[in-house]
Amino acid sequence: MTGADAAPPAFQDLYPDSWSHCHGCGRLNATGLHIRSFWDGDETVATVVPRPDQTSLPGYVYGGLIASAIDCHSTGSAAGAAHRAAGGVPGGGPLPRFVTARLEVDFLAPTPIGEPMQLRSKIAEVGARKVVVETELTSGGALCARGRAVLVRVPDHWTPGG
Amino acid sequence: MTGADAAPPAFQDLYPDSWSHCHGCGRLNATGLHIRSFWDGDETVATVVPRPDQTSLPGYVYGGLIASAIDCHSTGSAAGAAHRAAGGVPGGGPLPRFVTARLEVDFLAPTPIGEPMQLRSKIAEVGARKVVVETELTSGGALCARGRAVLVRVPDHWTPGG
Repeated sequence: MTGADAAPPAFQDLYPDSWSHCHGCGRLNATGLHIRSFWDGDETVATVVPRPDQTSLPGYVYGGLIASAIDCHSTGSAAGAAHRAAGGVPGGGPLPRFVTARLEVDFLAPTPIGEPMQLRSKIAEVGARKVVVETELTSGGALCARGRAVLVRVPDHWTPGG
Repeated sequence: MTGADAAPPAFQDLYPDSWSHCHGCGRLNATGLHIRSFWDGDETVATVVPRPDQTSLPGYVYGGLIASAIDCHSTGSAAGAAHRAAGGVPGGGPLPRFVTARLEVDFLAPTPIGEPMQLRSKIAEVGARKVVVETELTSGGALCARGRAVLVRVPDHWTPGG
């Protein structure tokens, strides 16, 4: 496989190591969800496969996983969008870092535990310090939840505990 | 210890078994968060102790855990509030069952991973089918997040997969 044929990196693959321990999306978190988000044209996508124990009622996904998935996918999407808006090449890095200021989730239908959840997002707003991401979460083609997240940029020189 | 001195049951202890498998708050979910919520006067309270792996940046709690805690605490609070509004004795059961229709979380400050998170909620609205719960999440006395959840009642005869 040549470099040109290789799968593109996820936004989360392009975070620096110090930003890669998140339980939702960090590649260095051994027990986490490992949410990975990608461009699909001007939209961003992610697939999250619920574990059997991540149930609410038997057979359905608990709301916390849906909120977590939308949250971390939105943070990654904001990083990718801000990078691209500043002229960065998609798939290049390192990405700027965003945290969530506000998260809204509308739970529209029960989400089956046995199916992958598909997240697809539009970048509703991208500014120097603030990005807004709107997400639809589907399962088996059915719309199960809608999310809206407001993300704010963390200064590049900020380090955890610094 | 007499019955009068015993600790009161959590709202989640009073769910029927079929409602007790939630990863966030189910007493029958072996790997879950086991969120437990109680009355404190007219408000409801819960304490959630983050695990070390539930980090975002090293040292801080990831947003998904905060959203999950607010979500399941709100669902339990709605069940307790509807039961009490219908004349039920606090601590008695079984409770009616609610699911989340909408969840809003404002993340106001980083939440330290090493401290218990304290959730305290007001029942903003309690109707026959809809309850609204407003939550403040603090850590070490500092306000870290605010939540608002709209919960809807599930018909008593509804069973998972039924």
